[in-house]
Amino acid sequence: MESLEVLLLDPMNEYLEQELDRRCRLVRLWESPPDRRADFVRAHAASIRAVVGSPGYGAYAALIDSLPALEIIASFSVGIDHIDLAKCKERGIRVTNTPDVLTDDVADLAVGLAIATLRKIPQADRYVRAGQWKNHNGAFTLTTRFSGKRVGIIGLGRIGLAIARRVEAFDCPVNYHQRTKQAYPSYTYYPSAVELAANSDVLVVACLLSAQTRHIVNREVMEALGPKGVLINIGRGAHVDEAELVAALVDGRLGGAGLDVFEDEPNVPEALFPLDNVVLGPHVGSGTHGTRTAMVDLVLGNLEAHASNEPLLTPVV
Amino acid sequence: MESLEVLLLDPMNEYLEQELDRRCRLVRLWESPPDRRADFVRAHAASIRAVVGSPGYGAYAALIDSLPALEIIASFSVGIDHIDLAKCKERGIRVTNTPDVLTDDVADLAVGLAIATLRKIPQADRYVRAGQWKNHNGAFTLTTRFSGKRVGIIGLGRIGLAIARRVEAFDCPVNYHQRTKQAYPSYTYYPSAVELAANSDVLVVACLLSAQTRHIVNREVMEALGPKGVLINIGRGAHVDEAELVAALVDGRLGGAGLDVFEDEPNVPEALFPLDNVVLGPHVGSGTHGTRTAMVDLVLGNLEAHASNEPLLTPVV
Repeated sequence: MESLEVLLLDPMNEYLEQELDRRCRLVRLWESPPDRRADFVRAHAASIRAVVGSPGYGAYAALIDSLPALEIIASFSVGIDHIDLAKCKERGIRVTNTPDVLTDDVADLAVGLAIATLRKIPQADRYVRAGQWKNHNGAFTLTTRFSGKRVGIIGLGRIGLAIARRVEAFDCPVNYHQRTKQAYPSYTYYPSAVELAANSDVLVVACLLSAQTRHIVNREVMEALGPKGVLINIGRGAHVDEAELVAALVDGRLGGAGLDVFEDEPNVPEALFPLDNVVLGPHVGSGTHGTRTAMVDLVLGNLEAHASNEPLLTPVV
Repeated sequence: MESLEVLLLDPMNEYLEQELDRRCRLVRLWESPPDRRADFVRAHAASIRAVVGSPGYGAYAALIDSLPALEIIASFSVGIDHIDLAKCKERGIRVTNTPDVLTDDVADLAVGLAIATLRKIPQADRYVRAGQWKNHNGAFTLTTRFSGKRVGIIGLGRIGLAIARRVEAFDCPVNYHQRTKQAYPSYTYYPSAVELAANSDVLVVACLLSAQTRHIVNREVMEALGPKGVLINIGRGAHVDEAELVAALVDGRLGGAGLDVFEDEPNVPEALFPLDNVVLGPHVGSGTHGTRTAMVDLVLGNLEAHASNEPLLTPVV
């Protein structure tokens, strides 16, 4: 694919950049200052045939419109909410993502965040490092057991199922909600997010973001989860009404939250920073060396397949 | 047991104090200044028939010797390394602990610490709260996958087995070491801690502390675990040669550690505080509301049984 000109939207991974540099003609969008990007894209518009994007920087309608030679958008993510799929279909632009390779990591982080939030692991770490244990003689706050808690999962897809399998080993009954009930003998279906929340202690967002699932965790769902309930979000920030979430956490109407994603990344509501009932992450669900390398290989494999007219490895559109 | 005079060694739990106050004659050791405690104990020596201790304050030979009327020591813990069992046997003093009720919590914390250490959950939380995500635009360090890692467990007792069951759901092969091999078809036995460490990515200390297991994780074991290996200790601090551990972590000869226990609690080696490859806890393996209440009830149940000449609920000696 030496002749393929690829526009990379942000510096998501060093190995990805290095391989794209080696294998094709790479154009880095962030090398132009933000106020000059439209001109920059125009200058390359005739030759750019591929875009590599990530949740951090989407391929929305305006960008797609400005690239008349665009043939494929390869996303460095499983979720493709940051890509204008309708526009791609209309234009015949192919879209790929990176499913499966990140499932284990994201499920691990979901369980890790749930235990860390209930057992206050980061708070305990801060307490010890600040010398408070020595000074207070053992008075770290009591916390809440994770084992046996009813775990409600929104979206029992690949990642949701991987979370379900893990929490079952902690004797957690698994509930779930999604559009259609599936034939899982040991998981209990609820036809709405509110009913799921009302019957769960820990609510995990693991679905894809779409118009239907935007703000699926709204004020009503948070109230159903309640002052002892905990929300874990490893999906997308926009799954949750963040303003309502912050208010519920500050007021104690929601027990706690483990959040790896936010509505306006990398901006996190500063009202969360002093709270003791939250654990925060910088969108690192898939952020391990092994998985990011596998994701890069999948992006490259899709671009190579496209360039040589072979079937795409993981096509979405 | 209204007539039973009980010496409580430190303020381990409010509900325990309240119930002991209500049910028997409670003497609080910490109400006398440290340099007057020998006199204080002497003043009550003739009437104290029970001691309630915890890992934070042991019932060693000198204390037992100073209490001629002592009949029972009820420990607020499963481990009884802080009690002089030989002396108790010699004097015919009964000893009880609090097994089973804390198994799930300790196993949860072990898995939580393993994920938190590999995925750097507290570090990620600090990074976001400090505003670094916003400023660095997403450059949090890549971390290490937990799923599939070979988990080596020292001591496949109640807690060790509960950890094994949990990590199996993360597709982690389980290895173990203890004195005698058991007939577990899916767990691999190693006859020494060094061999276990050499064949594991994550080494978890889950055995009881005894003369045989003191410093079972020594320099040789840490070197076998190696610069990519991670040590999780939810047992007792003295299971690990702490000076060697600190040196190995500082030098990078050991990859990381999740430590809930330390050799000289509540004193934690300050050389650990600036390290990014450790997660620290203030001995909170059993530290949930539900479990601590169940532990109190077991301590009270043992004392009640003793006072009314019934069989003890969870006797050790």
